[in-house]
Amino acid sequence: MVAPSVPPRDEAAIATVVGILKQRFGERLATGHALREQHSATLTWIDPQLPDAVVFAESTADVVETVRACAAHRVPVIPFGTGTSLEGHVNAPAGGISLDVSRMNKVLAVHAEDLDCVVEPGVTRKQLNEFLRDTGLFFPIDPGADASLGGMASTRASGTNAVRYGTMKDNVISLEVVTATGEVMTTSRRARKSSTGYDLTRLFVGSEGTLGIITKLTLRLYGIPEATSAGICPFPSIKAAADAVILTIQTGLPVARIELLDEVQVRAVNGYSKLSLPEQPLLLVEFHGTEAGVVEQAERFGDIAAEYGGGPFQWATLAEERSRLWAARHDAYWAALSLRPGCKSVSSDVCVPISRLAECIDETKRDIESCGLIAPIVGHVGDGNFHCLPLIDMESPFEVERAKAFMERLVLRALAMEGTCSGEHGVGSGKMKYLEREHGTAPLDAMRAIKTALDPHGIMNPGKIVAT
Amino acid sequence: MVAPSVPPRDEAAIATVVGILKQRFGERLATGHALREQHSATLTWIDPQLPDAVVFAESTADVVETVRACAAHRVPVIPFGTGTSLEGHVNAPAGGISLDVSRMNKVLAVHAEDLDCVVEPGVTRKQLNEFLRDTGLFFPIDPGADASLGGMASTRASGTNAVRYGTMKDNVISLEVVTATGEVMTTSRRARKSSTGYDLTRLFVGSEGTLGIITKLTLRLYGIPEATSAGICPFPSIKAAADAVILTIQTGLPVARIELLDEVQVRAVNGYSKLSLPEQPLLLVEFHGTEAGVVEQAERFGDIAAEYGGGPFQWATLAEERSRLWAARHDAYWAALSLRPGCKSVSSDVCVPISRLAECIDETKRDIESCGLIAPIVGHVGDGNFHCLPLIDMESPFEVERAKAFMERLVLRALAMEGTCSGEHGVGSGKMKYLEREHGTAPLDAMRAIKTALDPHGIMNPGKIVAT
Repeated sequence: MVAPSVPPRDEAAIATVVGILKQRFGERLATGHALREQHSATLTWIDPQLPDAVVFAESTADVVETVRACAAHRVPVIPFGTGTSLEGHVNAPAGGISLDVSRMNKVLAVHAEDLDCVVEPGVTRKQLNEFLRDTGLFFPIDPGADASLGGMASTRASGTNAVRYGTMKDNVISLEVVTATGEVMTTSRRARKSSTGYDLTRLFVGSEGTLGIITKLTLRLYGIPEATSAGICPFPSIKAAADAVILTIQTGLPVARIELLDEVQVRAVNGYSKLSLPEQPLLLVEFHGTEAGVVEQAERFGDIAAEYGGGPFQWATLAEERSRLWAARHDAYWAALSLRPGCKSVSSDVCVPISRLAECIDETKRDIESCGLIAPIVGHVGDGNFHCLPLIDMESPFEVERAKAFMERLVLRALAMEGTCSGEHGVGSGKMKYLEREHGTAPLDAMRAIKTALDPHGIMNPGKIVAT
Repeated sequence: MVAPSVPPRDEAAIATVVGILKQRFGERLATGHALREQHSATLTWIDPQLPDAVVFAESTADVVETVRACAAHRVPVIPFGTGTSLEGHVNAPAGGISLDVSRMNKVLAVHAEDLDCVVEPGVTRKQLNEFLRDTGLFFPIDPGADASLGGMASTRASGTNAVRYGTMKDNVISLEVVTATGEVMTTSRRARKSSTGYDLTRLFVGSEGTLGIITKLTLRLYGIPEATSAGICPFPSIKAAADAVILTIQTGLPVARIELLDEVQVRAVNGYSKLSLPEQPLLLVEFHGTEAGVVEQAERFGDIAAEYGGGPFQWATLAEERSRLWAARHDAYWAALSLRPGCKSVSSDVCVPISRLAECIDETKRDIESCGLIAPIVGHVGDGNFHCLPLIDMESPFEVERAKAFMERLVLRALAMEGTCSGEHGVGSGKMKYLEREHGTAPLDAMRAIKTALDPHGIMNPGKIVAT
């Protein structure tokens, strides 16, 4: 199987397409350096690779026209939402057109009875939840950044709520997609379930713009829970916290969030948010349900935590107290940065079966210590997913190399434990090198065959996932 | 896009392959007529199309050898589990080898801490739950028949529990698959979530053996709930029952099962099971949770039902009483048959957005009445999914034609309401003719491109899903 490769940069074709699109879109096509740079990967240590022009699409028809012009001249198209992806997803290694869908930001329909909504891809998760505020419904997936929903679907994002509500794969009912030949297709009906053919919806979720461009999403919504309880519980060790997580999930307690902060992250939070949390591994939990249900759930969790030496478990059902409790988690990133002012934090993301979580985090912490890094750990531990935030002086080649080597060991450690090199950030160009090791040859060949079948000329976001 | 077609029957190639496989498998290759007939579609009104031979595989290696022999001579391979599929999935329109995996029936691993297990494809759902009995865990998907888990994954099966636990798409973590060229691949790591490339797992779930043969499944498990409550609630109309379902789900009541029987089905059940249920539309519900939680949930549901004129809501938490309540549902099929002794019941399966459910069922009931059919209705109404069971004298061409025309109207009605022609039975050969109407040209072209990419010679279960 020959791998689809990044097409060579074709100056004449690019100039032709930019000319055609300029004529069509006028000021909605931009070529300024700053704007093009902003449309490349800037939130990561992966070097930015600039597109040649940015088109601001305002409709599916705009996307179709752009893709058709690019397809006719075999020029790359790179979809762009908010630019908050972390693995170089929006880079343009062979140049081409960045297709910015952020102006496609209308909520098109809310079907309250069906618990779904239809949105354009540039709608962000916060914008959607603002819009839904008066309906009693909400969209649960929260990857941290206020990402666009098109981007979240493209990278199969998840976040703190995934343990209860799943990831984007579980919450996208249907997609409208513009294919590599500029055709518009809808991947599924709006019915809640279907068994009519290949699951194109799930194929496009997580395909990172390499198979087509998402122009509309039908998403699952949920009733805002009648009551919520949340709490913080310190543990004597990572292992004790992980064991409590395992038992919590095994007994079917429907925890909505269960997040781990290691003692380094807790120290950072204490300093940053002027708190005095015990500097121990900490679980932050949240329960959704009825008034009686969330009290019962919190009490059950407290019992489980105590079995593993955890506690005291402080919890509350009042909104203000909950907010205070979650402040620690929400400030985790900025708090981490405050540990080494002037440094960058490089977020990584691995996921292992939950039975291996304590072992994986413990080994990672020993590695951090032995190579002299400062790297707080926060995790969506109900899924076995955690992030390391090594703090790096990007001016120091030594530090950058050291961090790269650490990141590689982290990935290989997760893979050795039946885990994955990315739980929720995606592949982009940053993690392509690990894909064969994770999946093996035959699955990668299958992915390449699918890529070639749906994008024979390799114009859709080239250089990502399965390109070489 | 040229559609992959059923390859012409090649007598010489088939004879060669049967010879090769006979030499390899001895008595594990069978060619008797009765056995071949049993390995074609017999549970449906679709005419059986017999394979030329049946191979009883006992290992992945057996599957690999069979597929390689078939691939070398371009002879069809049709996977077979328990033969309980309903849309002609196991028919062999161009002959070939039925690959029976029912002897691959070992539970290979149970990872209690990770809430998952690894099974061979011939393990049935009841067998798995028997095996799990002492672990406190269970596998929730229940399509009615004691189907094989490989078959359930292949058809994206669901059933009564789907409203709470999802369908097979939500409960398969990873698959081992033998590809069309006889390579073995694993579609995903065992970690709970991943965002590393195209979702091959979800692509194979629901692909009905047309892309490869499932030889191992890693499945999600759940803790057996601490407590269960279940009840029966009559309603004055289908609309009232449907509205109660909508509000139940909208308010986030985590109902585990919510099943509708129409008054015809209730009459059948009363006669068959010697009950005296009110001959009205009936909802059967079940709740899973803590002792206090299930009581609270049942009371909430009772309140909701009363808002729509439903009641009295009789419910119980005792296992025996629950069993009595659910007897009505479990006997639905046999009860329906008892309405017209000697006739066959042809199961259909459509699914619409839940807001359209009452309208869709009401129109269907008017249709039933105006064309003179007897056709009880039972539905997994929490998903908007329902089944019609027209009772047909298969000896009467008039009755068969009338039922076929009715089934077609049922499908078109569902499609007109943003629904799907199959919520859980799959496409097989029976529903292929509706796929273009449901999905449109571009998605069907994409499915054909994927089929051609992964099975270029069209040997994997030909004549199903996207073949013509």
